Amino acid sequence: MPSSANSELPGFDDVKDAAGRLAGRALPTPLLESALLNDALGFRLLVKAEVLQRTGSFKFRGAYNRISRFTAAERRRGVVAYSSGNHAQGVAAAAKVLGAPATIVMPKDAPALKIANTRAYGAEIVFYDRLKDDREAIGARIAAERGLMLVKPYDDRYVIAGQGTVGLEVAGDARARGIALDALIVPCGGGGLISGCALAMAEESPGTKVYAAEPAGWDDTGRSLEAGTRLSNPPGGSGLCDALLAPTPGEMTFALNSRLLAGAFAVDDAAVYRAMAAAFRHLKLVVEPGGAVALAAALANAKDWQGETVVCVLSGGNVDPALFADVLAKRI
Amino acid sequence: MPSSANSELPGFDDVKDAAGRLAGRALPTPLLESALLNDALGFRLLVKAEVLQRTGSFKFRGAYNRISRFTAAERRRGVVAYSSGNHAQGVAAAAKVLGAPATIVMPKDAPALKIANTRAYGAEIVFYDRLKDDREAIGARIAAERGLMLVKPYDDRYVIAGQGTVGLEVAGDARARGIALDALIVPCGGGGLISGCALAMAEESPGTKVYAAEPAGWDDTGRSLEAGTRLSNPPGGSGLCDALLAPTPGEMTFALNSRLLAGAFAVDDAAVYRAMAAAFRHLKLVVEPGGAVALAAALANAKDWQGETVVCVLSGGNVDPALFADVLAKRI
Repeated sequence: MPSSANSELPGFDDVKDAAGRLAGRALPTPLLESALLNDALGFRLLVKAEVLQRTGSFKFRGAYNRISRFTAAERRRGVVAYSSGNHAQGVAAAAKVLGAPATIVMPKDAPALKIANTRAYGAEIVFYDRLKDDREAIGARIAAERGLMLVKPYDDRYVIAGQGTVGLEVAGDARARGIALDALIVPCGGGGLISGCALAMAEESPGTKVYAAEPAGWDDTGRSLEAGTRLSNPPGGSGLCDALLAPTPGEMTFALNSRLLAGAFAVDDAAVYRAMAAAFRHLKLVVEPGGAVALAAALANAKDWQGETVVCVLSGGNVDPALFADVLAKRI
Repeated sequence: MPSSANSELPGFDDVKDAAGRLAGRALPTPLLESALLNDALGFRLLVKAEVLQRTGSFKFRGAYNRISRFTAAERRRGVVAYSSGNHAQGVAAAAKVLGAPATIVMPKDAPALKIANTRAYGAEIVFYDRLKDDREAIGARIAAERGLMLVKPYDDRYVIAGQGTVGLEVAGDARARGIALDALIVPCGGGGLISGCALAMAEESPGTKVYAAEPAGWDDTGRSLEAGTRLSNPPGGSGLCDALLAPTPGEMTFALNSRLLAGAFAVDDAAVYRAMAAAFRHLKLVVEPGGAVALAAALANAKDWQGETVVCVLSGGNVDPALFADVLAKRI
């Protein structure tokens, strides 16, 4: 039974299988660039615009891949997930498409847009306090009490494989256009997106180095890669990148990432703001803070990429208008 | 000689020919939608995201198609164009790709972003006063004095044909996805984009009605369609939609539009702001005021589209950050 094997590590075949399931469901998002930005930077910068994905982030991919494997009875009972908002919307939207009721455990300080959209997809929302409560425990309790299937945000074979279709598309598009990719930089919270992408690139574009981008203070994957073991984040980091505030690398994702990644970058809030403004100006894309960390890392380290070709995943665009306005007006 | 026949009306074959020239040069932009927005509206709303086109607007298409037909000697001498900013960037970028020096006549109150980008593509800029000077006369004088080829913004067979590739892609994408299109709404200034799109739709999707969207006070095409003759705009209209401030319908474009369009909508500034905010929230796209008028028309007339499928062209995204911030923060 596929749904009982979801704690096994995924392989490349799982990513290809996910791509088949997502065909006609998820949007194959475009790989975009700006000639002016390339000229200014001195290297070719492509962005994988997952902000244009259904629900405004890549999370629909993994959620759909996971829920599509549930039995009819499991779907009828429904699903539960915990998330700051993008996995919430991904699960809620995928559950709606597949006819499963969804219950989502969200921090009460999640962006208003993410809460409103999750509700608009028809999900029931249970709030928790990000600083006091244990969201995994709440999710497990609701799953047990109500007989619901838990859809974890990253430590799940089929969630990772679904997110990996982002990497599969990047490699395929680049090959079709005759572009050799030197590096792929991917936003990293729990590590689901990047581990899936790294699986795809290892097979389809083995010459491409894959790097994680994390917010400063939430650079657990970068420090864990150096230490060779999973380390946690200290308390007190900026909460700007709400999509990337996982406390520690996932078990499954770190097992993959420690084998497949070339390194990691940590970026501060100012670099994130600059990346959001650059995406607005040059690419006409709305990117949320957590979705902009890979672009922030590319821009902040431009001197190291001279003459190379770098892809950054813009992983999500669900940002409240007031915050975006503040970024554009340089009030923060 | 093709370049001497540019005052003849284009036909569908010209659009197809332009598509061939633009292959690998212009980006085939995606047709996007939001499930939540569709649910809220009661009809299926697709957007043709020309904000993602090279230079941030559709204008690259027509400019490239036109300049690509110049002789080597004509390219060496260079091109001149007058434009509030999107045609400016389109001509400057296409000229750069094709090795032609570009001189651009721009209003001195054009958006700063458009001026900066036009210059960044390597063009020389000559400023004029939008309220006092005659830009067409300035363009003609510079062309004569310097021996440059004038690339008109809309009254040109190959410019119209190039813009028409937007409609060709819309019809092709819809057919490939099995979507029947009831209506296509297109922003209209001088009428180049919409006349080209209408040529393409008449051939490739004849059941689709094509409507112009214009800013209130600049609804010359709508009034001209009703009157059956070309009428001018009265002075004093809002300058918000800087991309759409043509004084009167073009001669060539009106000859096509009066035959091919189903009608026109005029939208006020408040409707444009709402459309920009909706594109931000639901589609993660940055749209400039003039680029948002078709979406504004679709949203403002939602009750008339119930159950139908409507495509809006988002024609440009070159908006200054301060204005966009004001729109998001509802300060205007």
